[in-house]
Amino acid sequence: MISTLLSRTRRGADGDPVPRLAYGADYNPEQWPRDVWEEDVRLMREAGVNIVSVGIFSWARVQPGADQWDFGWLDEVMDLLHEGGIGVDLATATASPPPWLSTAHPEILPVTADGETLWPGARQHWRPTSPVFREHALRLVRAMATRYADHPALVAWHVSNELGCHNVYDYSDDAARAFRDWLRARYTTLDALNHAWGTAFWSQRYGDWEQILPPRLAASHPNPTQQLDFKRFSSHALKEYLRAEREILREITPDVPVTTNFMVMGGTKGMDYADWAEEVDFVANDHYVVPGPQDRDELSFSANLTSGIAGGRPWFLMEHSTSAVNWQPVNLAKRPGELARDALVHVAHGADAVCFFQWRQSAAGAEKYHSAMVPHAGADSDVFRAVTALGATLKTLAPVAGTEREPARVGILYDWQSWWASEQDSHPTSLLDYRQEALDWYSALLALGVRADLVTTRADLGRYRVLIAPVLHVVPADLAKTLTRYAEQGGHLVTTYFSGIVDENDHVWLGGYPGALRELLGIRIEEFGPLPAAETVELDDGTTGALWTDQVTVTDPETQVLARYRTGAQAGRAAVTRRPTGPGSAAYVSTRLGVEGLTSLLPRLLEPAGVTSELPADARGPVELAVRRGPAGRFLFLVNRTDATVPVLGLAGEVLLGARDADGTLTLGPRDVAVLRQPAV
Amino acid sequence: MISTLLSRTRRGADGDPVPRLAYGADYNPEQWPRDVWEEDVRLMREAGVNIVSVGIFSWARVQPGADQWDFGWLDEVMDLLHEGGIGVDLATATASPPPWLSTAHPEILPVTADGETLWPGARQHWRPTSPVFREHALRLVRAMATRYADHPALVAWHVSNELGCHNVYDYSDDAARAFRDWLRARYTTLDALNHAWGTAFWSQRYGDWEQILPPRLAASHPNPTQQLDFKRFSSHALKEYLRAEREILREITPDVPVTTNFMVMGGTKGMDYADWAEEVDFVANDHYVVPGPQDRDELSFSANLTSGIAGGRPWFLMEHSTSAVNWQPVNLAKRPGELARDALVHVAHGADAVCFFQWRQSAAGAEKYHSAMVPHAGADSDVFRAVTALGATLKTLAPVAGTEREPARVGILYDWQSWWASEQDSHPTSLLDYRQEALDWYSALLALGVRADLVTTRADLGRYRVLIAPVLHVVPADLAKTLTRYAEQGGHLVTTYFSGIVDENDHVWLGGYPGALRELLGIRIEEFGPLPAAETVELDDGTTGALWTDQVTVTDPETQVLARYRTGAQAGRAAVTRRPTGPGSAAYVSTRLGVEGLTSLLPRLLEPAGVTSELPADARGPVELAVRRGPAGRFLFLVNRTDATVPVLGLAGEVLLGARDADGTLTLGPRDVAVLRQPAV
Amino acid sequence: MISTLLSRTRRGADGDPVPRLAYGADYNPEQWPRDVWEEDVRLMREAGVNIVSVGIFSWARVQPGADQWDFGWLDEVMDLLHEGGIGVDLATATASPPPWLSTAHPEILPVTADGETLWPGARQHWRPTSPVFREHALRLVRAMATRYADHPALVAWHVSNELGCHNVYDYSDDAARAFRDWLRARYTTLDALNHAWGTAFWSQRYGDWEQILPPRLAASHPNPTQQLDFKRFSSHALKEYLRAEREILREITPDVPVTTNFMVMGGTKGMDYADWAEEVDFVANDHYVVPGPQDRDELSFSANLTSGIAGGRPWFLMEHSTSAVNWQPVNLAKRPGELARDALVHVAHGADAVCFFQWRQSAAGAEKYHSAMVPHAGADSDVFRAVTALGATLKTLAPVAGTEREPARVGILYDWQSWWASEQDSHPTSLLDYRQEALDWYSALLALGVRADLVTTRADLGRYRVLIAPVLHVVPADLAKTLTRYAEQGGHLVTTYFSGIVDENDHVWLGGYPGALRELLGIRIEEFGPLPAAETVELDDGTTGALWTDQVTVTDPETQVLARYRTGAQAGRAAVTRRPTGPGSAAYVSTRLGVEGLTSLLPRLLEPAGVTSELPADARGPVELAVRRGPAGRFLFLVNRTDATVPVLGLAGEVLLGARDADGTLTLGPRDVAVLRQPAV
Repeated sequence: MISTLLSRTRRGADGDPVPRLAYGADYNPEQWPRDVWEEDVRLMREAGVNIVSVGIFSWARVQPGADQWDFGWLDEVMDLLHEGGIGVDLATATASPPPWLSTAHPEILPVTADGETLWPGARQHWRPTSPVFREHALRLVRAMATRYADHPALVAWHVSNELGCHNVYDYSDDAARAFRDWLRARYTTLDALNHAWGTAFWSQRYGDWEQILPPRLAASHPNPTQQLDFKRFSSHALKEYLRAEREILREITPDVPVTTNFMVMGGTKGMDYADWAEEVDFVANDHYVVPGPQDRDELSFSANLTSGIAGGRPWFLMEHSTSAVNWQPVNLAKRPGELARDALVHVAHGADAVCFFQWRQSAAGAEKYHSAMVPHAGADSDVFRAVTALGATLKTLAPVAGTEREPARVGILYDWQSWWASEQDSHPTSLLDYRQEALDWYSALLALGVRADLVTTRADLGRYRVLIAPVLHVVPADLAKTLTRYAEQGGHLVTTYFSGIVDENDHVWLGGYPGALRELLGIRIEEFGPLPAAETVELDDGTTGALWTDQVTVTDPETQVLARYRTGAQAGRAAVTRRPTGPGSAAYVSTRLGVEGLTSLLPRLLEPAGVTSELPADARGPVELAVRRGPAGRFLFLVNRTDATVPVLGLAGEVLLGARDADGTLTLGPRDVAVLRQPAV
Repeated sequence: MISTLLSRTRRGADGDPVPRLAYGADYNPEQWPRDVWEEDVRLMREAGVNIVSVGIFSWARVQPGADQWDFGWLDEVMDLLHEGGIGVDLATATASPPPWLSTAHPEILPVTADGETLWPGARQHWRPTSPVFREHALRLVRAMATRYADHPALVAWHVSNELGCHNVYDYSDDAARAFRDWLRARYTTLDALNHAWGTAFWSQRYGDWEQILPPRLAASHPNPTQQLDFKRFSSHALKEYLRAEREILREITPDVPVTTNFMVMGGTKGMDYADWAEEVDFVANDHYVVPGPQDRDELSFSANLTSGIAGGRPWFLMEHSTSAVNWQPVNLAKRPGELARDALVHVAHGADAVCFFQWRQSAAGAEKYHSAMVPHAGADSDVFRAVTALGATLKTLAPVAGTEREPARVGILYDWQSWWASEQDSHPTSLLDYRQEALDWYSALLALGVRADLVTTRADLGRYRVLIAPVLHVVPADLAKTLTRYAEQGGHLVTTYFSGIVDENDHVWLGGYPGALRELLGIRIEEFGPLPAAETVELDDGTTGALWTDQVTVTDPETQVLARYRTGAQAGRAAVTRRPTGPGSAAYVSTRLGVEGLTSLLPRLLEPAGVTSELPADARGPVELAVRRGPAGRFLFLVNRTDATVPVLGLAGEVLLGARDADGTLTLGPRDVAVLRQPAV
Repeated sequence: MISTLLSRTRRGADGDPVPRLAYGADYNPEQWPRDVWEEDVRLMREAGVNIVSVGIFSWARVQPGADQWDFGWLDEVMDLLHEGGIGVDLATATASPPPWLSTAHPEILPVTADGETLWPGARQHWRPTSPVFREHALRLVRAMATRYADHPALVAWHVSNELGCHNVYDYSDDAARAFRDWLRARYTTLDALNHAWGTAFWSQRYGDWEQILPPRLAASHPNPTQQLDFKRFSSHALKEYLRAEREILREITPDVPVTTNFMVMGGTKGMDYADWAEEVDFVANDHYVVPGPQDRDELSFSANLTSGIAGGRPWFLMEHSTSAVNWQPVNLAKRPGELARDALVHVAHGADAVCFFQWRQSAAGAEKYHSAMVPHAGADSDVFRAVTALGATLKTLAPVAGTEREPARVGILYDWQSWWASEQDSHPTSLLDYRQEALDWYSALLALGVRADLVTTRADLGRYRVLIAPVLHVVPADLAKTLTRYAEQGGHLVTTYFSGIVDENDHVWLGGYPGALRELLGIRIEEFGPLPAAETVELDDGTTGALWTDQVTVTDPETQVLARYRTGAQAGRAAVTRRPTGPGSAAYVSTRLGVEGLTSLLPRLLEPAGVTSELPADARGPVELAVRRGPAGRFLFLVNRTDATVPVLGLAGEVLLGARDADGTLTLGPRDVAVLRQPAV
């Protein structure tokens, strides 16, 4: 889909062929004088840019008053871009309501759990459930779609922007009304809701739907299922809003694909993108690196997960940065090579488009210290030179466009339900970090040179020899059945502490943990053994556990104990177990081993499944491998994860990017990415 | 009183004699299907349970609408329990208002100092001073009392639950009105209030009662006496609410004793239980261990203080936990032996009832990860086996029931007024911790094997040879007189830094600190010398001071200097002094010595009073001794404070719990408790 | 001006000559019984007090109701003081509105950015822009001025108190209205405002003035220019209020000087005192020491900056403390000698009055643990003895009164615009501390014994051989011109990282940093290199950088590289540069070197300007030198910065304070201050 996006645009004046990987940025010409626009298009062409997102924050400019419209400047921008051969991913411009709207209708402003209003001044100050906001926003969508339906520059629609970045949780009366509607649809009867929420406790039994509220600031921990359902509802409410915009766009321009930019990255947790993916014509994502010990693994993890959300199909990297951002406590510039490396890791994991926020670094406003393709220093700068070099590289990689990810033999299950539920309050520990645990497994697999796919519960899990499900906390009965069937049919399931504990209503499966998976795993746990922040325990295989331990009893004589606690309250008890399930197995890791511990443990978990690295021995660890394939071939992306030079020996294939030595060795400089093409299988 | 509670219930079907120590839990059958109830009663009998608290969070179930009542299920529960020989401590069910009430009357919701409303979703979302809440709650109390007045299972009334746990400080307009009424009663005239509050400062002089507000969020530190009076008022308002419920219960069931569960533990500070104790027919307490270096000392301290609040008479442990709780950052399971040890420490200090929250661990709701007598794992679990064993132990200890505490020779004065006032803002240091200082003295006495009673100012202080009054900050003129008389009549008073500083209005006693006790102590202090967090000073007796020092001048030639500062700004000055007062003395400790320093200092303070340990030498420190006595004998509780085995030699008495070796040595295993009975004196 | 203040008062009964340096305190007799007042006056005379500030928090006492007035007590106080020969700096009493006013008009209460109301209970609970507050406050001012216009004790007017200490930022609807008015005056047209604020970004374009709001709590970072303008407006609004009071005072008592107490100290940042200074007849300041490694340097820095704000003319130290304060986490008492030393450092930097908060330590209220001239311990105390000694010292120093500061050869530019702008959110780093950087340069100069003047942009910069402008972030075009001219005419400009970055609208100067100063400095920076909190880099001159580095390119071949980075991302690049500008130069320090690094670097920056220390070699570092001069001579203040004894050799002059040895050496004991008089030049 994405690779064909650009075919909608006519060729540029210079007869340049339509590129196959998209390259570009958010483009906000309204921030600049008219005379800059021509230079913009010239520099875009110089850099190889073939697509830009326009209009994202243009509501106040396009519609300066309730009944005033000003499309002239945008017409001109669209024309200029088209003349330059640059396609437009056109925003519906609804991301940030203009001052006239919030002044006339302060009832669109979100309200925090504490009852504080979020005022205008920044962006995204609208309630996802506000009927007033929706009326005005959809009117704008209709106006934009009608205006540009037939513009030749238009290649895709960009609904709003980073939906939910700041306003996913709104506790207003509008939210309360919509929450009730959602609950009514989910539960049908109040009795069912009362049961699901466990309202028999703390005298919370509802006698009327109107009594139900969002989990606003309360005297103590609010009802956990109310909290969980509010998370589900809040994600759903934004998804419904996305659908509302999309329906208008489809009505007016049925042939123009619609997307919106997800934020699969770091702590962005409020939107269940696994649930959103089918609502867009292609998945788009924003990603920003947050510096830290696993920052580059996290980039790969997020790109990989985005691919999983997109079902392995190509996706669109809508935003990342050429260098520093502006919203971290300290915003580091990228080092030489990182701009290209970061972009290509996304391509390795299925991105068919590489875009930045933004084209030209703002001179004013809240993001003026956010890097861009054209920095404050101008085109005469290392950043712009690196941008231009990347544009050339992406042209070289054109054959990759449209290929899908080649499934790995290891899957890592990532589940928003478990993410949300496992980190709620009033739990055995407040220190549990769902995403970090998943990332650690991923880092350990990278360290071993073993490819793995991040997948959601919507994926065909059966295709994986090994399925790792870290902290799979929420296990409804049917998921328990699915996983049992998976293992019985030869799959090798690996799960961890605090998995299989509750059903979809956050009710504990009784009789001993992990209730839903107890029989499959062949163990029983009477009590959790969370560890204080500074405490660790040693296992008899030399690894070290943190955060959590379990009081495990092996209940099935077949269950093997792969490691035992050597210290701590569980000393002598099983720490890691595996129960054979005929051809498959079900393993349990009852503590947090961290990257190092998991790297040590994983070979023992992969071995029965026959999974080993696809890389030459010396490259396992230093090099990340990602594989895309399609009719045009099988593309191996080799990413140097280190700051040293790494030789990769003996990998066959045509070198699309990188260089082979005389003896065939592919040598990766620090932060280099190489791409090989092998014949399609 | 408590030991006779259970005689109200008829014997169970099996003819089991009525036990003398009560044993049980909160029982919330409404959380479970009907078929679980029979199993509950069966397991209760198996565990030795003879009392349960029912209905604590049943308001929404018993009264599902303003004019709807549903008692049928509760009738059935009461009948089932009675058939099983289990008495009921019946809640008035007012702890948590139902959704229909807060929806119809949001004006019952508490408001924080910042003006934020505390919404429903958790529990205790009601203003202590709301007339609307009171009307509805008291209507429920009357309905409950009327319904169950003659039920044979009813043994006691349980007013609300943990009054003030989350709602003690309410800054609403209702609170403002009630605060004014309370102030009018306290001060009679505005002039008196203006004087007491020092309103001449910062232009705060009130011209009308209606101008007075709670200390809501202000631009800077609110008036300290306003703050202190608001604390007094808030505790009083809840006490008045307790009285309102009690009056109805007494009217309808004059023979059924009334209690409510206090929370003498950790940081619970808002309710002056010394002032509340006389309002209940017997004192009941909830206690939860917060892990830390002095956690078990704190348990003993809280139990001891509860005994002090109860005037040495038996009290009722209404809640504690079998294992982990759910509200700490990390919730640790109890180690083997801790369940029984923790319970028996309470019995040692006067508990005649041992109850847990709760009977059966919830599958849903905010406390589902809080342990219970029947855990998620079910009856086939270490926890339930330990519960059953404890039931048997409590039967063995039946003779203890009804005995009172035998006064120790050392008293530690614990005073809510000083606790509140000494930790207010705009003080010499914000690091002062009143309760920790008292706990440290208690730990030091435990380390020396010297018994001490926690007492309030309502106690007969004269019965103690040594009276330790740590941080006795608020000393009204009459208390100063009491303490002076105490010392002059032979008592040995010990007090510390920041004691004797202010009167009941938080006005500084002038002329040099500690004004109210300056002459008694024979010293004068011109300036306080608080220490930064990381700073300590050395004393010439080898101890180390932290937090605070004083610029002490000895003014009475009789005053002895027990230790001097060797380092710091006060180097060379007196650090610890004692002034003989004829047969008694008055000592002053001007710094925070911590447990180790106090353990080193205390023998010198105890020696003139002739106080030594009642334990054999080897047991001093490893073993805590608590003594109860009554007509049936003198009961020595010996608690092993360590994780090692401790032999106790030469203590006479019949072994009620534990075992003597052939040579008469009583050997305490790790965390063991032994009980000896000696003849009544 | 100040030195002549006291000549307004008639001589005391004892015929003592009118002193020339003022000495006194805030005096709050309304806190004390009538019989204390006589003792107060007696002790004041004993201590050498000749001026007190009265009535600061007397509104509720003077005007107990909207139409009730009670001046009798104040008449009596004024009379008593006058009889004692003590002048009165009379407050307008508007600092803290009385309960009757806030009860009748809650719409005067400030509102936080979060929408929380600041209630009465403390002080300063009024909106600077409230028309209702202003009406009532100005009515009081008129009443006070009318009443005491001709009172012989009156020597000056004290407008309000610490304007803006707690209420500088108010986000109420009153504030919104006034903000709009201020913006309309600043920008005239909405187009100009939209341009200045960069509202093209994030869809913030305003279509009507009424749409504009203060930067209330928003979903993300509010518009930075909106934030910056709100800071400007808030400072301005308070200044306007100051002017409103002043106009009434000038109208009624045209001959009585008017002041208000600034708070040039620590983190007080909201009021642009450089902009306020011309509104008062003489500058007054409050200063409190916050303990820390540079606390005494900070005292000198603040006094020096106050002098700069006052244009080098004498100023009035309105408040400082005799010992501990009450609002820090831990409030340390002053050590022996510090009371006098701290006071005299202010005098060294131009204070002609030394006053304390407060005369007599309160027994009640929020500041009762704040030290005073008469402490809780009473007059028989070390503090009062030190107070009396200081009174005598100040009499000795009478000749200093009225002299001005002798300009140093080094200036340090301190600019509120840059302070505000450089520390805003969404910047390269959140760790930048404008004041700390300036203080570090000052500390380094102290360490070298080189005198420096803190100056504002209003000063005649040309008088300085070296002008250090740390983090001069905001550089409008005309300031860039001024600095360029300064360097071209022979001045030696030194500036640092993040200087010259934006114009007055917080718009980045494009083309490479530091845009506004790029040519002057002869360098160009493409990207900032902020450092994480724990990271440092080494320079090749042995110094260490923190917080920040820059990717510097030298663009002018004349530019010299004084130091290069040896480690870090910029290794090999220039770290410190200097471009000769004919007779002058322009140097750039691209990292935070700290006191030690700057002390090492500074000699190389001072050398070309020919600036060296005026102190004897051994005294450079241990001794701070400040110089005042006037017709009566040149006064050298020598402050011992250490806790050791320091000999100062070879400085000529009459010893006003201190003592010379036989060989002429002036020996300064720990914390001593000596004063020499040399003939006027």
